Amino acid sequence: MKNNFSDIQNTIEELHCKYLPFKDGHTADYIPELAHANTNHFGIAVVTTEGEVFKVGNCEASFTLQSTSKPFVYGLALEQNGQEKMLSKVGVEPTGDAFNSIIELEKQSHRPYNPMINSGAIAVSSLIQGTSFHDKIATIIKAFESYVGHALVVDENVFLSEKKTAHRNRAIAHLLRHFGIIEEDNIEEILDLYFKQCSILVNTIDLATIAATIAGGGVQPFTKNQVVHSNTARDILSLMFTCGMYDSTGEWAYTVGLPAKSGVSGGLLAALPGKMGIAVYSPLIDERGHSLRAVKVFQELAKKYSLSVFSHEDN
Amino acid sequence: MKNNFSDIQNTIEELHCKYLPFKDGHTADYIPELAHANTNHFGIAVVTTEGEVFKVGNCEASFTLQSTSKPFVYGLALEQNGQEKMLSKVGVEPTGDAFNSIIELEKQSHRPYNPMINSGAIAVSSLIQGTSFHDKIATIIKAFESYVGHALVVDENVFLSEKKTAHRNRAIAHLLRHFGIIEEDNIEEILDLYFKQCSILVNTIDLATIAATIAGGGVQPFTKNQVVHSNTARDILSLMFTCGMYDSTGEWAYTVGLPAKSGVSGGLLAALPGKMGIAVYSPLIDERGHSLRAVKVFQELAKKYSLSVFSHEDN
Amino acid sequence: MKNNFSDIQNTIEELHCKYLPFKDGHTADYIPELAHANTNHFGIAVVTTEGEVFKVGNCEASFTLQSTSKPFVYGLALEQNGQEKMLSKVGVEPTGDAFNSIIELEKQSHRPYNPMINSGAIAVSSLIQGTSFHDKIATIIKAFESYVGHALVVDENVFLSEKKTAHRNRAIAHLLRHFGIIEEDNIEEILDLYFKQCSILVNTIDLATIAATIAGGGVQPFTKNQVVHSNTARDILSLMFTCGMYDSTGEWAYTVGLPAKSGVSGGLLAALPGKMGIAVYSPLIDERGHSLRAVKVFQELAKKYSLSVFSHEDN
Amino acid sequence: MKNNFSDIQNTIEELHCKYLPFKDGHTADYIPELAHANTNHFGIAVVTTEGEVFKVGNCEASFTLQSTSKPFVYGLALEQNGQEKMLSKVGVEPTGDAFNSIIELEKQSHRPYNPMINSGAIAVSSLIQGTSFHDKIATIIKAFESYVGHALVVDENVFLSEKKTAHRNRAIAHLLRHFGIIEEDNIEEILDLYFKQCSILVNTIDLATIAATIAGGGVQPFTKNQVVHSNTARDILSLMFTCGMYDSTGEWAYTVGLPAKSGVSGGLLAALPGKMGIAVYSPLIDERGHSLRAVKVFQELAKKYSLSVFSHEDN
Repeated sequence: MKNNFSDIQNTIEELHCKYLPFKDGHTADYIPELAHANTNHFGIAVVTTEGEVFKVGNCEASFTLQSTSKPFVYGLALEQNGQEKMLSKVGVEPTGDAFNSIIELEKQSHRPYNPMINSGAIAVSSLIQGTSFHDKIATIIKAFESYVGHALVVDENVFLSEKKTAHRNRAIAHLLRHFGIIEEDNIEEILDLYFKQCSILVNTIDLATIAATIAGGGVQPFTKNQVVHSNTARDILSLMFTCGMYDSTGEWAYTVGLPAKSGVSGGLLAALPGKMGIAVYSPLIDERGHSLRAVKVFQELAKKYSLSVFSHEDN
Repeated sequence: MKNNFSDIQNTIEELHCKYLPFKDGHTADYIPELAHANTNHFGIAVVTTEGEVFKVGNCEASFTLQSTSKPFVYGLALEQNGQEKMLSKVGVEPTGDAFNSIIELEKQSHRPYNPMINSGAIAVSSLIQGTSFHDKIATIIKAFESYVGHALVVDENVFLSEKKTAHRNRAIAHLLRHFGIIEEDNIEEILDLYFKQCSILVNTIDLATIAATIAGGGVQPFTKNQVVHSNTARDILSLMFTCGMYDSTGEWAYTVGLPAKSGVSGGLLAALPGKMGIAVYSPLIDERGHSLRAVKVFQELAKKYSLSVFSHEDN
Repeated sequence: MKNNFSDIQNTIEELHCKYLPFKDGHTADYIPELAHANTNHFGIAVVTTEGEVFKVGNCEASFTLQSTSKPFVYGLALEQNGQEKMLSKVGVEPTGDAFNSIIELEKQSHRPYNPMINSGAIAVSSLIQGTSFHDKIATIIKAFESYVGHALVVDENVFLSEKKTAHRNRAIAHLLRHFGIIEEDNIEEILDLYFKQCSILVNTIDLATIAATIAGGGVQPFTKNQVVHSNTARDILSLMFTCGMYDSTGEWAYTVGLPAKSGVSGGLLAALPGKMGIAVYSPLIDERGHSLRAVKVFQELAKKYSLSVFSHEDN
Repeated sequence: MKNNFSDIQNTIEELHCKYLPFKDGHTADYIPELAHANTNHFGIAVVTTEGEVFKVGNCEASFTLQSTSKPFVYGLALEQNGQEKMLSKVGVEPTGDAFNSIIELEKQSHRPYNPMINSGAIAVSSLIQGTSFHDKIATIIKAFESYVGHALVVDENVFLSEKKTAHRNRAIAHLLRHFGIIEEDNIEEILDLYFKQCSILVNTIDLATIAATIAGGGVQPFTKNQVVHSNTARDILSLMFTCGMYDSTGEWAYTVGLPAKSGVSGGLLAALPGKMGIAVYSPLIDERGHSLRAVKVFQELAKKYSLSVFSHEDN
């Protein structure tokens, strides 16, 4: 059979042992607050769509969502605005470029290529509906609370650190304003919303739970609430598969084969549709912004359990 | 349930009726021979991994493979050379660019981004092993014969037409030679191999059979032969999903959600993993090189049967 | 002989007659205030380095400097900071791109290519020395007053109009901040300085006088003051010759052959080294931002008087 | 006074002494034959428009023209085809890119930006008129013989060496064919013409004589023949000034200020309009393809004699 996960707890424990001494990479340095992360922290968590939990290592250590927030805030905006409006503002096309490339705007439409790169994520922030800035950020936090099943807070130091050093993101936002992708002049508010969403604190189990929710068609594995519509879950999975890992998306699809999203704080989540969510946290990242231990763990899991959504099931 | 295909024959007949009057688009004009295609031709074929066949319209009309050959010649080269060698020459990263963009080479490695764009496909041609040019082209044709289950021929007029007008592909090949991606000076031979593979004649049922073979983990649905290794089938599916539709790959993943490949002659094939192959042929293409009727048919099928590999199965 | 200008007054009168009915082009529309310019206005002025003046048409009509300010503010910053510091922040390389291209930054140094494109001009604004914003803008206005020989004012409506719609320039400034070309966080102040310099009001004779000053090695033709050092005048001439007309710089060098600078408000000035300054004003511009009547007049003058700095003098 | 050259012989002797020990740089390595050049060779020659000659060092050592041929073959094609035809095929716009950039073609017209980059020079080769390949190459050689005043030969080893390794130039030529800039299928003949022109052998005095001819409005300083029309000489000077030094054209204009052209074999020529031609030969080049000793010598000469065409003459 394709996926027999009966030994999954043993497997993640072995992988944790194997890669704990692995110290390649560095903490994200473009945001001072992230540079101080504990490089010994290393957690692996698996949450099934049925609500079973497997975990090893520092799964309770908290870190900020960063880019792992992008697919889910996109899902929120999608449910608020509908597919047509969303596609008029942000594409869903993969690009061979890095997350922070300066102008990843389609030549003709001036849309960001997709919501996983910064320009796309900032455009998405401008599309969040609400009566005020506080209403909008509350809506975003509430969405993530539905995913994880408990209250969440923003790390204000990380937020302020991002806000202070965000010259490139600020440039991107003004460019989006120039091209009319952003329609209002409230650039700083849009950026604040974006930095706040990136600064929400979670732990490894939270991340795996978010992934499990999407893997389960939008149904939270513990509360059994339908957190997002199953079509939204499908669109999020599709987007993560084609665009989730920036300029290594193709290599990831080829070697791991799961919809996934990484963040520069060191979190990496992936969804095995219909089965489970998997998350790994380790703040040592490579030059593309992916947690190095996490990539190793996923490659081994993918090989051992034939995780790829395109692996052939012999039944 | 997600996919109940009991009415599939009715459905494709209805879609055939609905889109037969649809005459948007134009035949490919960059190759004179393709411009003469019969624009009334329109076939839809479904072949299940069990060998059932559903079809409607001009499913016996023959046309040349063109770019629909790319994933499968890549699969052949992959089995001949191994993943490591292949990745050193051609990437697997999607790009936001069109199939015929002039220099889609990664900045640092000078590799073509992926084997679905012309530069990548030409690099793949240079990697086909054989004792002579005739041996190599025979190997390629034999591979496609294994997929379709019967003998195939090359359309020599299309081959000569492509060869004569291929200034851009010739430029690409010399550039790949410059960067050492192509290692020998036999540029014209490599291009001939590429033009020959593009000029192999098939019909709509053949195309659906190829797709069904890949959907079935490499097992041909009629002969039950293992045509390619199941890992190769997985890699081909992954590649088609992330790179198969050029600069509309993301939109296709979003609206259809199946690994697919189109060719400028008007063929479009898609694989529903574990279940079936689907192919549509109509030579009226859009500016991206996709058959317009085929795109319409697939979008409707995807909606009706929740075809997306990321659709949630309620079981 | 190369340049016999004895009939220059007749010539410019004839050219004025000839091109007054010529109504191609449009007023600049990206700044609302500029769109209202009187499209009948058309002035031609010649000022020799000796202080002779020839003029025809609406030479007293005032308009804002816009990009014609760029070479001279660069000259001011150059005298304040020295060549080494200036070259570390802004290159002097021509580029084949338009004045408003989004990111014209050299790949390795992240410097703007030259001070004639917007990114370069904004970087130059950040290099103007002064104890306060008001001191800096006073310094800039004073510099232009030295060139023209009388007091000048800023058009506050144009200034506010530019400030309000400058999303692209704002994006550029934040990007320059990101790359450390701009060293402080006072982005809005730098942009205000830039918009103010663009909004200084002059007339056609003023523009010709500025050109004559540079043509005369920095000596104002009426006051005989050394307004800038002769080496600065040389550097400004060189820069205007290689970069002054954006992506039509080469064509201009080829067909006119004089150091020149145009602005979207419709002014165009050129310097014949050692001899004279010439200016034409007409607010109808082409898609590259050059006054169409001005280009016509200069092409005819160049042909008639062999103006090109590379024309051979038979003496 | 601006240019008092009475001590020019002393000056070049001093500069020769000063820079003979300077061994930075490397010989061109992309053509094996050029890599073998004698790195001790170093010649400086000045030829006035009156026919005076000043020289020091290895001024009789022969080397191939390489890119120093480009402005003059362009001049030949210009006289054969006229300005309109030439401009329809090759632009005159500077670009911020290097000589060997892969596709320096204007986005809309698909013209090469200018005839100094390889794509432009190859396009120019396709425009040389003649009844046969041998007639065309004879015409080119004859043109250079008129410039230097004696017979010239092609270095067949360099020619064959270039021809064998020219994958990039071959790619460029096929791309120009694709875009219709090259109108015939005789790509190899056009490339052979280009490689032959690059392989013509000259020495430093020849190079200075060519420069002196252009500086003198097309009149050869020794034979007094009008080698090219004075308008052609003007256009060549203009082109060298705006495009002659590739991506360091602006810096050269800023620090030297003379129309110039360099070649990877180590020759560098510059023209002081109306006065003289100057050439330096030393095969040690920098990463941009300019002879390092030559650049040093020209910068010192420019400073000492205020060579810039935009230096102010106090008369």
